[in-house]
Amino acid sequence: MTRPVLTFWFEFASTYTHLAVQRAEALAEARGVALAWTPILLGPIFAAQGWTTSPFNQLPVKGANMWRDMERQAAKLGLPPVVRPEPFPQNSLLAARVATALPPEARPGFAREVFLAEFARGETISDPQVVSAALAACGLPAEETLARAADPETKAALRAATEAAQAAGVFGAPSFTTPDGELFWGNDRLEDALDWAVERA
Amino acid sequence: MTRPVLTFWFEFASTYTHLAVQRAEALAEARGVALAWTPILLGPIFAAQGWTTSPFNQLPVKGANMWRDMERQAAKLGLPPVVRPEPFPQNSLLAARVATALPPEARPGFAREVFLAEFARGETISDPQVVSAALAACGLPAEETLARAADPETKAALRAATEAAQAAGVFGAPSFTTPDGELFWGNDRLEDALDWAVERA
Repeated sequence: MTRPVLTFWFEFASTYTHLAVQRAEALAEARGVALAWTPILLGPIFAAQGWTTSPFNQLPVKGANMWRDMERQAAKLGLPPVVRPEPFPQNSLLAARVATALPPEARPGFAREVFLAEFARGETISDPQVVSAALAACGLPAEETLARAADPETKAALRAATEAAQAAGVFGAPSFTTPDGELFWGNDRLEDALDWAVERA
Repeated sequence: MTRPVLTFWFEFASTYTHLAVQRAEALAEARGVALAWTPILLGPIFAAQGWTTSPFNQLPVKGANMWRDMERQAAKLGLPPVVRPEPFPQNSLLAARVATALPPEARPGFAREVFLAEFARGETISDPQVVSAALAACGLPAEETLARAADPETKAALRAATEAAQAAGVFGAPSFTTPDGELFWGNDRLEDALDWAVERA
């Protein structure tokens, strides 16, 4: 018997993805679901939608509520208090390439470390030292992984993943897709997406 | 001892408000919270944000996912299958004025009826007959209420409520605000908002 699969499309600059990244593995484990952790870049997807920045920056009143909501949600989930990195959104290209270069089983741990650096400590995730520290915290070889992240194949794989996300209807992050074509958007739908994967497997 | 209060800002054209309207009273009751049902118009608020229609119409891929999500959420909550009214969004002015003209205790029942007409049967809520049927289903006097809905005082009260919502930071619906200044946005935050109202009362 194969385990149900759920594809987890994530973008390192996304606030609510932080909440999903910190919880996803434990929730999936409890339900016996295999999560396919797939880093993407929302930049090209937002650009195709005619956006030039985060929707939270486009609408300040919505952005202010998002940060307050993040604080409340983080407290509710037992996560560290939320820190807003400068600038927001962060440039996520390096982190996304590094995650792409990692073997799939190493991605959840790396992602958790990067998102904690970004939204619990306000660090700059485009800084190779911050990314190296995240790799080291997971016992992953920093120098070698950063080199692989710069390979043309890695860059092409990240572009392909972003295009696959777009083709699957992804318009924001986090998003979750099932083999039978359902798309669940947002940290608030993580449980529903996992349940769907189990019930329709 | 006074009951904790939560202000429930609702817009009759809003899809996710349907989900909140059908559940809110029972959830509030169970927690001992008094809900202040306050109809508003998002039109002026969206216009101030530079929008001319529903954000779900501005971005078709997001809109398509919203309708699918509504279907899934309605099924999960045991609500009737979701029907998309034409046009979407509906013109909600009449329903909002009628709700404003009603005494507060009559608003929840009327709102539930209107939202079922709109999103379970696809009826046109700007049609006085549809609104009259919703009033009649609640045992409310249709002709008299419609007449009161057209009074200048009712129109002014609805405008004032919309301005109060905007002043409270409301940028979408459903929204919930607490006396200590918290704003919770979305049907997904209804439980959190009620819990906050109870804990900080």
